Amino acid sequence: MSVTDELLANNADYAARFSGPLPLPPAKHVAVLACMDARINVYGVLGLKEGEAHVIRNAGGVVTEDEIRSLAISQRLLGTTEIILIHHTDCGMLTFTDDGFKKSIQEDVGVKPSWAAEAFGDLDDDVRQSIARIKNSPFIPEKDSVRGFVFDVATGKLNEVA
Amino acid sequence: MSVTDELLANNADYAARFSGPLPLPPAKHVAVLACMDARINVYGVLGLKEGEAHVIRNAGGVVTEDEIRSLAISQRLLGTTEIILIHHTDCGMLTFTDDGFKKSIQEDVGVKPSWAAEAFGDLDDDVRQSIARIKNSPFIPEKDSVRGFVFDVATGKLNEVA
Repeated sequence: MSVTDELLANNADYAARFSGPLPLPPAKHVAVLACMDARINVYGVLGLKEGEAHVIRNAGGVVTEDEIRSLAISQRLLGTTEIILIHHTDCGMLTFTDDGFKKSIQEDVGVKPSWAAEAFGDLDDDVRQSIARIKNSPFIPEKDSVRGFVFDVATGKLNEVA
Repeated sequence: MSVTDELLANNADYAARFSGPLPLPPAKHVAVLACMDARINVYGVLGLKEGEAHVIRNAGGVVTEDEIRSLAISQRLLGTTEIILIHHTDCGMLTFTDDGFKKSIQEDVGVKPSWAAEAFGDLDDDVRQSIARIKNSPFIPEKDSVRGFVFDVATGKLNEVA
Protein backbone atom coordinates (compact mmCIF):
# COMPACT_ATOMS: atom_id res chain seq x y z
CA MET A 1 0.00 0.00 0.00
CA SER A 2 1.36 3.42 -0.96
CA VAL A 3 1.40 6.32 1.50
CA THR A 4 -1.23 7.95 -0.71
CA ASP A 5 -3.54 4.97 -0.12
CA GLU A 6 -2.87 5.16 3.62
CA LEU A 7 -3.80 8.87 3.66
CA LEU A 8 -6.98 8.13 1.69
CA ALA A 9 -7.98 5.69 4.41
CA ASN A 10 -7.49 8.53 6.91
CA ASN A 11 -9.81 10.65 4.74
CA ALA A 12 -12.64 8.18 5.26
CA ASP A 13 -12.38 8.83 9.01
CA TYR A 14 -12.35 12.59 8.44
CA ALA A 15 -15.42 12.43 6.17
CA ALA A 16 -17.28 10.35 8.76
CA ARG A 17 -16.90 13.19 11.29
CA PHE A 18 -17.38 16.01 8.74
CA SER A 19 -20.11 18.62 8.85
CA GLY A 20 -20.42 20.83 5.80
CA PRO A 21 -20.68 22.63 3.54
CA LEU A 22 -19.37 26.00 4.71
CA PRO A 23 -19.47 29.24 2.67
CA LEU A 24 -16.77 29.84 0.02
CA PRO A 25 -15.35 33.23 1.24
CA PRO A 26 -12.95 32.92 4.21
CA ALA A 27 -14.90 33.85 7.37
CA LYS A 28 -11.94 35.64 8.99
CA HIS A 29 -10.96 37.56 5.82
CA VAL A 30 -7.34 36.46 6.16
CA ALA A 31 -4.87 34.94 3.72
CA VAL A 32 -1.87 33.08 5.13
CA LEU A 33 1.25 32.50 3.02
CA ALA A 34 3.55 29.92 4.59
CA CYS A 35 6.45 27.64 3.72
CA MET A 36 5.48 24.13 2.56
CA ASP A 37 7.57 22.67 5.41
CA ALA A 38 5.97 19.53 6.83
CA ARG A 39 6.31 20.75 10.42
CA ILE A 40 4.05 23.80 9.90
CA ASN A 41 0.45 22.75 10.45
CA VAL A 42 -1.00 26.17 9.59
CA TYR A 43 -4.49 25.42 10.96
CA GLY A 44 -2.95 24.22 14.22
CA VAL A 45 -0.32 26.96 14.52
CA LEU A 46 -2.93 29.73 14.15
CA GLY A 47 -5.88 27.94 15.74
CA LEU A 48 -7.82 28.15 12.47
CA LYS A 49 -10.95 26.17 11.77
CA GLU A 50 -12.22 25.02 8.39
CA GLY A 51 -13.65 27.93 6.41
CA GLU A 52 -11.75 30.73 8.11
CA ALA A 53 -8.65 31.61 6.02
CA HIS A 54 -7.03 31.07 2.65
CA VAL A 55 -3.77 29.17 2.98
CA ILE A 56 -1.11 29.60 0.30
CA ARG A 57 2.11 27.61 0.61
CA ASN A 58 5.30 26.97 -1.34
CA ALA A 59 8.98 26.19 -0.87
CA GLY A 60 10.19 28.94 1.46
CA GLY A 61 6.89 30.78 1.78
CA VAL A 62 8.26 33.23 -0.77
CA VAL A 63 6.37 35.70 -2.96
CA THR A 64 6.65 35.01 -6.67
CA GLU A 65 4.22 35.73 -9.49
CA ASP A 66 2.02 32.80 -8.49
CA GLU A 67 1.58 34.05 -4.92
CA ILE A 68 0.65 37.49 -6.30
CA ARG A 69 -1.94 35.67 -8.47
CA SER A 70 -3.35 33.79 -5.48
CA LEU A 71 -3.40 36.85 -3.22
CA ALA A 72 -5.05 38.95 -5.95
CA ILE A 73 -7.81 36.33 -6.33
CA SER A 74 -8.10 36.05 -2.52
CA GLN A 75 -8.56 39.77 -2.00
CA ARG A 76 -10.37 40.84 -5.17
CA LEU A 77 -12.80 37.95 -5.53
CA LEU A 78 -13.11 36.53 -2.04
CA GLY A 79 -12.80 39.52 0.25
CA THR A 80 -9.69 38.88 2.35
CA THR A 81 -8.02 41.99 3.77
CA GLU A 82 -5.18 40.79 6.02
CA ILE A 83 -2.06 38.84 5.02
CA ILE A 84 0.06 36.71 7.36
CA LEU A 85 3.48 35.54 6.12
CA ILE A 86 5.19 32.57 7.79
CA HIS A 87 8.79 31.48 7.35
CA HIS A 88 10.42 29.14 9.89
CA THR A 89 13.64 28.16 11.61
CA ASP A 90 15.67 25.22 10.19
CA CYS A 91 14.31 25.97 6.69
CA GLY A 92 15.63 23.95 3.77
CA MET A 93 15.89 27.13 1.71
CA LEU A 94 18.85 28.18 3.89
CA THR A 95 20.83 25.07 2.88
CA PHE A 96 21.48 25.63 -0.82
CA THR A 97 22.02 28.33 -3.44
CA ASP A 98 20.06 29.00 -6.61
CA ASP A 99 23.21 28.54 -8.66
CA GLY A 100 24.10 25.20 -7.09
CA PHE A 101 20.56 23.80 -7.23
CA LYS A 102 20.04 24.78 -10.86
CA LYS A 103 23.46 23.46 -11.85
CA SER A 104 22.68 20.10 -10.22
CA ILE A 105 19.45 19.89 -12.22
CA GLN A 106 21.25 20.81 -15.43
CA GLU A 107 23.89 18.13 -14.80
CA ASP A 108 21.18 15.58 -14.04
CA VAL A 109 18.68 16.14 -16.85
CA GLY A 110 20.45 18.49 -19.28
CA VAL A 111 17.99 21.35 -18.82
CA LYS A 112 18.55 24.34 -16.53
CA PRO A 113 15.39 25.82 -15.01
CA SER A 114 14.59 29.31 -16.29
CA TRP A 115 13.03 30.12 -12.91
CA ALA A 116 14.68 31.27 -9.68
CA ALA A 117 14.86 28.64 -6.94
CA GLU A 118 14.35 31.47 -4.37
CA ALA A 119 16.89 30.16 -1.87
CA PHE A 120 17.77 32.68 0.82
CA GLY A 121 20.48 33.22 3.43
CA ASP A 122 18.61 35.02 6.20
CA LEU A 123 15.09 34.32 7.44
CA ASP A 124 14.18 37.79 8.68
CA ASP A 125 15.57 39.41 5.53
CA ASP A 126 13.49 37.11 3.35
CA VAL A 127 10.32 37.81 5.31
CA ARG A 128 10.96 41.52 4.75
CA GLN A 129 11.59 40.80 1.05
CA SER A 130 8.24 39.00 0.84
CA ILE A 131 6.46 41.96 2.44
CA ALA A 132 8.24 44.32 0.03
CA ARG A 133 7.13 42.29 -2.99
CA ILE A 134 3.51 42.40 -1.82
CA LYS A 135 3.65 46.13 -1.02
CA ASN A 136 5.18 46.72 -4.47
CA SER A 137 2.48 44.84 -6.41
CA PRO A 138 -0.26 46.86 -8.14
CA PHE A 139 -2.53 43.79 -8.08
CA ILE A 140 -2.95 43.50 -4.28
CA PRO A 141 -5.44 46.14 -3.09
CA GLU A 142 -5.36 45.58 0.70
CA LYS A 143 -1.92 46.26 2.16
CA ASP A 144 -2.64 47.80 5.57
CA SER A 145 -2.13 44.50 7.42
CA VAL A 146 0.75 42.55 5.87
CA ARG A 147 2.70 41.05 8.76
CA GLY A 148 5.55 38.55 8.69
CA PHE A 149 6.60 35.89 11.18
CA VAL A 150 9.22 33.21 11.73
CA PHE A 151 7.79 29.96 13.14
CA ASP A 152 10.15 28.32 15.61
CA VAL A 153 10.11 24.58 14.87
CA ALA A 154 11.51 23.87 18.34
CA THR A 155 8.88 25.78 20.33
CA GLY A 156 5.84 26.08 18.02
CA LYS A 157 5.90 29.85 18.50
CA LEU A 158 5.50 32.58 15.85
CA ASN A 159 7.94 35.47 16.24
CA GLU A 160 7.15 38.66 14.34
CA VAL A 161 9.78 40.16 12.05
CA ALA A 162 10.14 43.89 12.54
CA MET B 1 -7.81 43.90 17.68
CA SER B 2 -7.10 42.64 14.14
CA VAL B 3 -7.79 39.07 13.13
CA THR B 4 -4.02 38.63 12.86
CA ASP B 5 -3.68 39.53 16.56
CA GLU B 6 -6.46 37.12 17.44
CA LEU B 7 -4.68 34.29 15.56
CA LEU B 8 -1.40 35.15 17.31
CA ALA B 9 -3.18 34.65 20.64
CA ASN B 10 -4.23 31.22 19.37
CA ASN B 11 -0.56 30.52 18.58
CA ALA B 12 0.37 30.97 22.25
CA ASP B 13 -2.00 28.10 23.09
CA TYR B 14 -0.50 25.96 20.32
CA ALA B 15 3.06 26.65 21.50
CA ALA B 16 2.11 25.74 25.08
CA ARG B 17 1.09 22.25 23.91
CA PHE B 18 3.91 21.90 21.33
CA SER B 19 6.59 19.23 21.37
CA GLY B 20 9.41 19.63 18.90
CA PRO B 21 11.58 19.91 16.98
CA LEU B 22 10.96 17.24 14.34
CA PRO B 23 13.31 16.38 11.45
CA LEU B 24 13.25 18.57 8.32
CA PRO B 25 12.51 15.92 5.61
CA PRO B 26 8.83 14.86 5.45
CA ALA B 27 8.50 11.53 7.27
CA LYS B 28 5.93 10.14 4.82
CA HIS B 29 7.82 11.28 1.70
CA VAL B 30 4.69 12.88 0.27
CA ALA B 31 4.03 16.32 -1.22
CA VAL B 32 0.43 17.55 -1.32
CA LEU B 33 -0.62 20.30 -3.74
CA ALA B 34 -4.05 21.70 -2.87
CA CYS B 35 -6.23 24.72 -3.51
CA MET B 36 -5.90 27.58 -0.99
CA ASP B 37 -9.64 27.29 -0.23
CA ALA B 38 -10.36 27.97 3.43
CA ARG B 39 -12.50 24.84 3.78
CA ILE B 40 -9.64 22.44 2.98
CA ASN B 41 -7.76 21.68 6.18
CA VAL B 42 -5.14 19.50 4.47
CA TYR B 43 -3.76 18.01 7.71
CA GLY B 44 -7.27 17.09 8.79
CA VAL B 45 -8.49 15.85 5.40
CA LEU B 46 -5.56 13.44 5.06
CA GLY B 47 -5.02 12.67 8.74
CA LEU B 48 -1.52 14.13 8.58
CA LYS B 49 0.53 14.98 11.62
CA GLU B 50 3.23 17.63 11.91
CA GLY B 51 6.41 16.55 10.09
CA GLU B 52 4.85 14.10 7.65
CA ALA B 53 4.23 15.86 4.29
CA HIS B 54 5.05 18.98 2.34
CA VAL B 55 1.95 21.04 1.68
CA ILE B 56 1.89 23.38 -1.33
CA ARG B 57 -1.21 25.50 -1.91
CA ASN B 58 -2.42 28.22 -4.28
CA ALA B 59 -5.58 29.56 -5.91
CA GLY B 60 -7.07 26.50 -7.60
CA GLY B 61 -4.37 24.02 -6.64
CA VAL B 62 -2.97 24.50 -10.14
CA VAL B 63 0.52 23.72 -11.43
CA THR B 64 2.46 26.78 -12.58
CA GLU B 65 6.20 27.42 -12.61
CA ASP B 66 6.22 28.08 -8.88
CA GLU B 67 4.66 24.70 -8.05
CA ILE B 68 7.26 23.00 -10.28
CA ARG B 69 9.91 24.90 -8.27
CA SER B 70 8.43 23.73 -4.96
CA LEU B 71 7.98 20.13 -6.11
CA ALA B 72 11.52 20.03 -7.52
CA ILE B 73 12.91 21.22 -4.16
CA SER B 74 10.62 18.77 -2.32
CA GLN B 75 11.75 15.75 -4.33
CA ARG B 76 15.37 16.61 -5.13
CA LEU B 77 16.45 18.06 -1.78
CA LEU B 78 14.02 16.57 0.73
CA GLY B 79 13.27 13.11 -0.59
CA THR B 80 9.52 13.10 -1.33
CA THR B 81 8.41 10.56 -3.93
CA GLU B 82 4.59 10.72 -4.04
CA ILE B 83 2.41 13.67 -5.11
CA ILE B 84 -1.24 14.19 -4.13
CA LEU B 85 -3.24 16.87 -5.99
CA ILE B 86 -6.42 18.27 -4.44
CA HIS B 87 -9.03 20.42 -6.17
CA HIS B 88 -12.51 20.79 -4.64
CA THR B 89 -16.19 21.30 -5.38
CA ASP B 90 -17.63 24.84 -5.25
CA CYS B 91 -14.23 26.27 -6.24
CA GLY B 92 -13.94 29.99 -6.83
CA MET B 93 -11.82 29.31 -9.94
CA LEU B 94 -14.99 28.05 -11.67
CA THR B 95 -16.70 31.44 -11.22
CA PHE B 96 -14.65 33.75 -13.45
CA THR B 97 -12.52 33.83 -16.61
CA ASP B 98 -8.92 34.90 -17.03
CA ASP B 99 -10.00 37.57 -19.51
CA GLY B 100 -12.66 39.02 -17.23
CA PHE B 101 -10.49 38.98 -14.11
CA LYS B 102 -7.52 40.59 -15.83
CA LYS B 103 -9.72 43.21 -17.50
CA SER B 104 -11.23 44.14 -14.13
CA ILE B 105 -7.75 44.64 -12.69
CA GLN B 106 -6.70 46.72 -15.68
CA GLU B 107 -9.79 48.91 -15.32
CA ASP B 108 -9.13 49.29 -11.60
CA VAL B 109 -5.40 50.03 -11.46
CA GLY B 110 -4.39 50.62 -15.09
CA VAL B 111 -2.06 47.63 -15.28
CA LYS B 112 -3.00 44.24 -16.76
CA PRO B 113 -1.26 41.25 -15.16
CA SER B 114 1.20 39.51 -17.47
CA TRP B 115 0.40 36.20 -15.73
CA ALA B 116 -2.46 33.79 -16.31
CA ALA B 117 -5.14 33.78 -13.60
CA GLU B 118 -5.54 29.99 -14.19
CA ALA B 119 -9.35 29.98 -13.97
CA PHE B 120 -10.90 26.73 -15.20
CA GLY B 121 -14.30 25.45 -16.26
CA ASP B 122 -14.17 21.80 -15.21
CA LEU B 123 -12.69 20.36 -12.03
CA ASP B 124 -11.75 16.92 -13.31
CA ASP B 125 -10.24 18.37 -16.49
CA ASP B 126 -8.09 20.74 -14.48
CA VAL B 127 -6.88 17.98 -12.17
CA ARG B 128 -5.83 16.05 -15.29
CA GLN B 129 -4.15 19.20 -16.64
CA SER B 130 -2.20 19.53 -13.38
CA ILE B 131 -1.05 15.91 -13.61
CA ALA B 132 -0.06 16.48 -17.25
CA ARG B 133 2.03 19.53 -16.36
CA ILE B 134 3.90 17.57 -13.68
CA LYS B 135 4.43 14.56 -15.96
CA ASN B 136 5.72 16.93 -18.66
CA SER B 137 8.28 18.68 -16.44
CA PRO B 138 11.94 17.63 -16.71
CA PHE B 139 12.57 18.96 -13.19
CA ILE B 140 10.38 16.49 -11.26
CA PRO B 141 12.19 13.14 -10.99
CA GLU B 142 9.56 11.01 -9.20
CA LYS B 143 6.39 10.63 -11.29
CA ASP B 144 5.22 7.08 -10.53
CA SER B 145 2.67 8.22 -7.95
CA VAL B 146 1.01 11.46 -9.06
CA ARG B 147 -2.66 11.15 -8.16
CA GLY B 148 -5.41 13.74 -8.34
CA PHE B 149 -8.56 14.18 -6.25
CA VAL B 150 -11.58 16.44 -5.90
CA PHE B 151 -12.46 17.24 -2.28
CA ASP B 152 -16.20 17.43 -1.74
CA VAL B 153 -16.85 20.44 0.52
CA ALA B 154 -20.27 19.00 1.44
CA THR B 155 -19.07 15.57 2.60
CA GLY B 156 -15.37 15.99 3.43
CA LYS B 157 -14.55 13.14 1.05
CA LEU B 158 -11.75 12.94 -1.53
CA ASN B 159 -12.84 11.49 -4.87
CA GLU B 160 -10.09 10.36 -7.24
CA VAL B 161 -10.05 11.70 -10.80
CA ALA B 162 -9.46 8.96 -13.35
